[in-house]
Amino acid sequence: MPSLDPPGLLDPLFTTERMRALTSDGAFVQGMLDFEAALARALARAGIAPAAEAEAVVAACRAEGYDLAALARAGAAAGNPAIPLVQALGERVAAAHPGAARWVHLGATSQDAMDTALVLALRGALAAFDEGLTRLAAALARLAAAHRDTLLAGRTWLQQAAPTTLGLKVAGWLDAVTRHRERLGEARRRALVVQLGGPVGTLAAYGDAALDLPRHLAAELGLSAPDLPWHAHRDRVAEVAAVLGLLTGTLGKIARDVALLMQTEVGEAFEPDAPGRGGSSSMPHKRNPVAAAVVGAAALRAPALVATLLGAMVQEHERGLGGWHAEWEALPELLRVADGALAQIISVVEGLEVDAARMAENLSASGGQLLAGAVAAALAPRLGRARAHAAVERASRRAREERRPLAEALAAEPEVRGALSRAELDRLLDPRAAAGAAPALVDRLLGGGER
Amino acid sequence: MPSLDPPGLLDPLFTTERMRALTSDGAFVQGMLDFEAALARALARAGIAPAAEAEAVVAACRAEGYDLAALARAGAAAGNPAIPLVQALGERVAAAHPGAARWVHLGATSQDAMDTALVLALRGALAAFDEGLTRLAAALARLAAAHRDTLLAGRTWLQQAAPTTLGLKVAGWLDAVTRHRERLGEARRRALVVQLGGPVGTLAAYGDAALDLPRHLAAELGLSAPDLPWHAHRDRVAEVAAVLGLLTGTLGKIARDVALLMQTEVGEAFEPDAPGRGGSSSMPHKRNPVAAAVVGAAALRAPALVATLLGAMVQEHERGLGGWHAEWEALPELLRVADGALAQIISVVEGLEVDAARMAENLSASGGQLLAGAVAAALAPRLGRARAHAAVERASRRAREERRPLAEALAAEPEVRGALSRAELDRLLDPRAAAGAAPALVDRLLGGGER
Amino acid sequence: MPSLDPPGLLDPLFTTERMRALTSDGAFVQGMLDFEAALARALARAGIAPAAEAEAVVAACRAEGYDLAALARAGAAAGNPAIPLVQALGERVAAAHPGAARWVHLGATSQDAMDTALVLALRGALAAFDEGLTRLAAALARLAAAHRDTLLAGRTWLQQAAPTTLGLKVAGWLDAVTRHRERLGEARRRALVVQLGGPVGTLAAYGDAALDLPRHLAAELGLSAPDLPWHAHRDRVAEVAAVLGLLTGTLGKIARDVALLMQTEVGEAFEPDAPGRGGSSSMPHKRNPVAAAVVGAAALRAPALVATLLGAMVQEHERGLGGWHAEWEALPELLRVADGALAQIISVVEGLEVDAARMAENLSASGGQLLAGAVAAALAPRLGRARAHAAVERASRRAREERRPLAEALAAEPEVRGALSRAELDRLLDPRAAAGAAPALVDRLLGGGER
Amino acid sequence: MPSLDPPGLLDPLFTTERMRALTSDGAFVQGMLDFEAALARALARAGIAPAAEAEAVVAACRAEGYDLAALARAGAAAGNPAIPLVQALGERVAAAHPGAARWVHLGATSQDAMDTALVLALRGALAAFDEGLTRLAAALARLAAAHRDTLLAGRTWLQQAAPTTLGLKVAGWLDAVTRHRERLGEARRRALVVQLGGPVGTLAAYGDAALDLPRHLAAELGLSAPDLPWHAHRDRVAEVAAVLGLLTGTLGKIARDVALLMQTEVGEAFEPDAPGRGGSSSMPHKRNPVAAAVVGAAALRAPALVATLLGAMVQEHERGLGGWHAEWEALPELLRVADGALAQIISVVEGLEVDAARMAENLSASGGQLLAGAVAAALAPRLGRARAHAAVERASRRAREERRPLAEALAAEPEVRGALSRAELDRLLDPRAAAGAAPALVDRLLGGGER
Repeated sequence: MPSLDPPGLLDPLFTTERMRALTSDGAFVQGMLDFEAALARALARAGIAPAAEAEAVVAACRAEGYDLAALARAGAAAGNPAIPLVQALGERVAAAHPGAARWVHLGATSQDAMDTALVLALRGALAAFDEGLTRLAAALARLAAAHRDTLLAGRTWLQQAAPTTLGLKVAGWLDAVTRHRERLGEARRRALVVQLGGPVGTLAAYGDAALDLPRHLAAELGLSAPDLPWHAHRDRVAEVAAVLGLLTGTLGKIARDVALLMQTEVGEAFEPDAPGRGGSSSMPHKRNPVAAAVVGAAALRAPALVATLLGAMVQEHERGLGGWHAEWEALPELLRVADGALAQIISVVEGLEVDAARMAENLSASGGQLLAGAVAAALAPRLGRARAHAAVERASRRAREERRPLAEALAAEPEVRGALSRAELDRLLDPRAAAGAAPALVDRLLGGGER
Repeated sequence: MPSLDPPGLLDPLFTTERMRALTSDGAFVQGMLDFEAALARALARAGIAPAAEAEAVVAACRAEGYDLAALARAGAAAGNPAIPLVQALGERVAAAHPGAARWVHLGATSQDAMDTALVLALRGALAAFDEGLTRLAAALARLAAAHRDTLLAGRTWLQQAAPTTLGLKVAGWLDAVTRHRERLGEARRRALVVQLGGPVGTLAAYGDAALDLPRHLAAELGLSAPDLPWHAHRDRVAEVAAVLGLLTGTLGKIARDVALLMQTEVGEAFEPDAPGRGGSSSMPHKRNPVAAAVVGAAALRAPALVATLLGAMVQEHERGLGGWHAEWEALPELLRVADGALAQIISVVEGLEVDAARMAENLSASGGQLLAGAVAAALAPRLGRARAHAAVERASRRAREERRPLAEALAAEPEVRGALSRAELDRLLDPRAAAGAAPALVDRLLGGGER
Repeated sequence: MPSLDPPGLLDPLFTTERMRALTSDGAFVQGMLDFEAALARALARAGIAPAAEAEAVVAACRAEGYDLAALARAGAAAGNPAIPLVQALGERVAAAHPGAARWVHLGATSQDAMDTALVLALRGALAAFDEGLTRLAAALARLAAAHRDTLLAGRTWLQQAAPTTLGLKVAGWLDAVTRHRERLGEARRRALVVQLGGPVGTLAAYGDAALDLPRHLAAELGLSAPDLPWHAHRDRVAEVAAVLGLLTGTLGKIARDVALLMQTEVGEAFEPDAPGRGGSSSMPHKRNPVAAAVVGAAALRAPALVATLLGAMVQEHERGLGGWHAEWEALPELLRVADGALAQIISVVEGLEVDAARMAENLSASGGQLLAGAVAAALAPRLGRARAHAAVERASRRAREERRPLAEALAAEPEVRGALSRAELDRLLDPRAAAGAAPALVDRLLGGGER
Repeated sequence: MPSLDPPGLLDPLFTTERMRALTSDGAFVQGMLDFEAALARALARAGIAPAAEAEAVVAACRAEGYDLAALARAGAAAGNPAIPLVQALGERVAAAHPGAARWVHLGATSQDAMDTALVLALRGALAAFDEGLTRLAAALARLAAAHRDTLLAGRTWLQQAAPTTLGLKVAGWLDAVTRHRERLGEARRRALVVQLGGPVGTLAAYGDAALDLPRHLAAELGLSAPDLPWHAHRDRVAEVAAVLGLLTGTLGKIARDVALLMQTEVGEAFEPDAPGRGGSSSMPHKRNPVAAAVVGAAALRAPALVATLLGAMVQEHERGLGGWHAEWEALPELLRVADGALAQIISVVEGLEVDAARMAENLSASGGQLLAGAVAAALAPRLGRARAHAAVERASRRAREERRPLAEALAAEPEVRGALSRAELDRLLDPRAAAGAAPALVDRLLGGGER
């Protein structure tokens, strides 16, 4: 029932239309009806229900026909929306085909319908995430390749530390994204199973067909059949949540990097510009990192939503009290938030504006201070680690105090002069050399050959 | 725009209509417009804007006139919904009264409008919580008084431990609720302040009137004026969240207690019955604790939402990136979840069905085992703590093994017989005496005098 | 340095000695020294350092020789303990073999040593978890097989719902544990990689040997080499945390089940007894579910610790500020808590005391009410779902009100009588039949063939 | 027993010595013994125990005499350390004064001792926090006053937005700290109460003295007496946690601000320097923001610890299972983390190095772009909001593209020229004027009078 859940005021900002649709009330009701339809057909496959009567059930399983507002009200009393939905479905089938109504929901429990509907939503969601990650990975690979050699200051603890390349930074993002794709695949394999157990998971209503019913149901829905009903074992669901939490953490890291690069005082890379994007109600000159804000918010929210799902795993006996209910809004929320973040990062990576000149400028702004480590590392085998470190630290301090290039201060330092020739020193102070294996690492990751 | 946010499928189960309305998109947009209207009047009070022009702004500040779907879309690009709302308001004012549009949003920033709208929502929400807690406290006081002397097994670690009264159990709930009312009052005093600072909190556009503007604005809205703009200092908001987290924890504790009492094997107290309530799609005999499920879910979700708000407090410089945005959906969610839980607990406490006979039955089912502690405590001054404990433990074990009353086993235990007369023992094994000060504690809490 | 971290007051309660040792300060320092030793040998493998000098470094890499209290103090100033450790190591090597000191930590950064030490701890921890889960799975399989047919009330929403068998309940626990073993294996494959990148991950100090060094290092330590340094990409670490959070959720579920079964009023299963176990300082008769308390606490703490690790993933640029530091105590805490919970559950499952007679007694205590669902399911194909449900609900209510067996009330119900013969009804009301496919599901899971 | 818990490797980095001591195992055992001593004296006050025998108990209540390692082991079996401690105390008293042992722990339960010990630790901790916040507030007030007029770029969304003063930024920090002091005072008033109820909170062992005993106990310990025992109502404890979570959020915000200001590319303010502080094992030139890292880590960990305490509030019946146990390590952890963060921020604020020249330089680096908002605000009343915004946006864009000062671009913009005189424009583009009420807001907050 799309009319029950139009986009909210903040939805276009925080999520995607596809994930909103997949997690909508209408989709959830349809998912439960898909379960009921598939169950009817499974009963027919098992020889329990006549095929024609099963089809009469199937025919009534279209969400359009149901009054979701009424389901919402009745579900509040009953404790879940499946109870009134099954009742309404039964009435509808009975009206159209009196004999068929007896097969409606036969042997199932509310949670069978709701969990299977959830799994159907997860199927769509995981496909969407996989598609998004594939697209993101492609964009990252292009960006890493394009900037394989683009020098910028590597920063640690928010301090310039040593040169690296933008390619390596982006390759790091890509490498993590690749692992998330693996994890999503593994979680999907475990998660996409039907739920069918009846009240306490014994499949008691199905007699000799008990072990077959879940397989028939799974076949109807294109899902797998689990070894056991899993009503009170929520690790499959919580695992999906955890993987989305991991993914959102990486997206948050990318967003933080971009936001920091986009600072007025840094100015090295920018979210793509677009009319009306990132404006300000009071400051005409500003260009706000909207994507970074959205993704940053997601990275703050996702961990707590994962914690909710993990905490909710403690479910009592055959079907729990409260834990299951805690999932109903928290998991869709996480799906929405994570996909919103993913879409924002895709747009940022696909449209990232890079100011390589500013990167070079910032890299040299300190007069070469961030090359100190390279010199110390080169000196260490000659002077020993402690003496090398101390000599370079002295030169670095002097250069800062006297506001002159590190190269001059190093050249003036007797210990350094004794150990390194001017040519060696010049080579060490060349940022390109100082970026070390950054380009080679990019090449290897992108499959461009290893040295 | 109520049409943008009708109740979702799960809203009637998980929240209240009043809190849904207070946290709706329509209410939020109206809150921002209330800010804009009040700002215009504050500008007039300060002699900056002509009163008639301010009123022209005010006249346009009715949410009904705005297209929330369009705001949602434009807000996604802009980064927040205030930017397109202010623009639409400006256009509307300009159309009706060209001279007045210049005062729209003057000197303010998006966050001024959004935060003040949030505070207006919190005002309504905190009033609703206070009303709910007042009602809950009254119901708890009645219930505690009615069951001042109703004996039941006190349970620790989910084991019967010693007798208490239902009155004392309920008084414990009441005592906690009373503290939450205090906390809400303290949080409210700090939280209900306007936000007005302009882009970076310097009130720069108001010249000499800068310090007066927030006061005028606060007076218009019936809020307080803060000492400083607080854009990047979210402790006020997070404190409200924390207090709701604390409250929900107590509600969860009450719900857990009721759910445990309601277990088939315990059967001492029940959520109120109602047609269609707590049914099952598969088990006609069942009566599910729906309130306990809803409140249990809330108690699982609230801590994570509080953690989100706390984690989001780390906001950069004058206005942050991501942290603020993380609040937008998380705080309303918490308000909804907490009020849903409160309403459920009110209905449970107001309608709790108590089976005092079953309580008495369960109390004696163990043959008096749960009075062992009282006997040990009485023996300790005579035999010493260790000997007393050991003697009673022996008798307790024997009674369990031989399935006979503890009284008999104790009477057969020489150490006990030597230290306590039969009359003393009988008194100690009277559950009413063993409930100790439970009734007196209830009386004192309810103000019925102290013994 | 074992003297720095003896067991704390609560350690024997909340964790295991093995995990305490693996996560001890002494082990961590040794882990960093193992990194330094392996780096020296890797430099020798790469032809950078002479083998004899590398061995001089190796010789100094024994934690016993270091003053951990001094490292702790110096690490507080420096920002991490690797900095003073590397310095002390350099001094020690210099004293023993002056020429060798220059190779100490060459080209590495503090985080290389600390992350690799963390991975070494994770290797031990994951092996311990795998061993524990293997043992738990075996115990669960035995228990499920032994109680394949032991009937007890299946409970949903904390209400008796329908019969099941203890074997199926335990099989459900086993099924989840099996999935956790899979997940741990997958996480381990990704997580057990060395860290080596130097200051910003460019391996800049190693010249042409840059891509080889991590492989040599990995070979020395028996770990894998990653595609890229991963200083600011913490998904590997957070994934391990997430999997432990999932595992702890399942352990918490098992503990909750046992604690509920162990309630005085239920009394169906018990944690194993032992002298001094679960006593009470005030109640000689009590036997507290200590394991359930410990595991319950773990299940409350683990989700938050996972959330910390997920939230900490947002790490800036090449090496982050704060996020990395948040892991240092949170991850060991999670390892300790999770292993403590695992050990408790192993002991519970291996020694679970089952009172099958009490299970049967509780199952029949309601006069067969919990068989109502089975009857309704059987009637549905004959009467239609709604009529069947209503007829059984009527009988169930009447039986409860009149305190007589459900069988009688059903037999008196005309609709039921018309649809089911007495023999059919008797069969439906036999709890063994009502447990449906429970035994067959157990068999299938345990590999004992499918029926 | 200090020997049981020396500082760990990371303690000097992450916490303070005072909080480590207050939360040490030795302090906790002493706290339980303080409870036992005070209980003995309370029994004497109530006329239950002879004074001399009570004093014999008191004499044995010195933690030095107890073997904490043995308590740890025995506590693991018993389920808590109070049980073996009470037993050891009883033995010790019995050995010294046989008649006195019978009063040991009389009528109390383990949780009475443990909770009161916790409250005694909280008393010390809250005093420490109050002292720390007092000191921090003083330092902040001095810093705000000193930099009342020091101009720097106000930044929103990590973009330069408009000028402000460092004084106002620091005043914002102070304002939040002041609210936290209020909150801590309110929480303290509720939290510092004894726990005494006996097994199920009925004070059953004390006969007519039941209501007096908690008061006597409280008087002995310098705490308050609660209206009711609160074993399963943890809101007092969780509130302290929540307030520390709020405080840590603000500390995290301050740390983030400082870390951002300290970036190489910004360089406006710095953590105080000290020998060995913030060094790098690989980069001699670096000066890492160690305090920001520690506080950032605290701000990531505290929300989760608060969530743990909130989640743990759902405690069953008279004394819970698992929830209480979840507090035992989580709350001390939070106290340690929060005080570590507080101490770091105190040192940062007391020693902050401010580079006002760099602030001025960064402020003008954009050629006045961040004054665009002020000009737009001034134009709005003359041109209307939309035209003003558009005109300034045009000029701002042109200035950026042509890399010239905003002033020139504005002067060239016909709409601007028509509305503002050059003198007006110059005044608007003076950053000092553009900082608006910043100095006045500082004055008002510091009590230096209101303008």
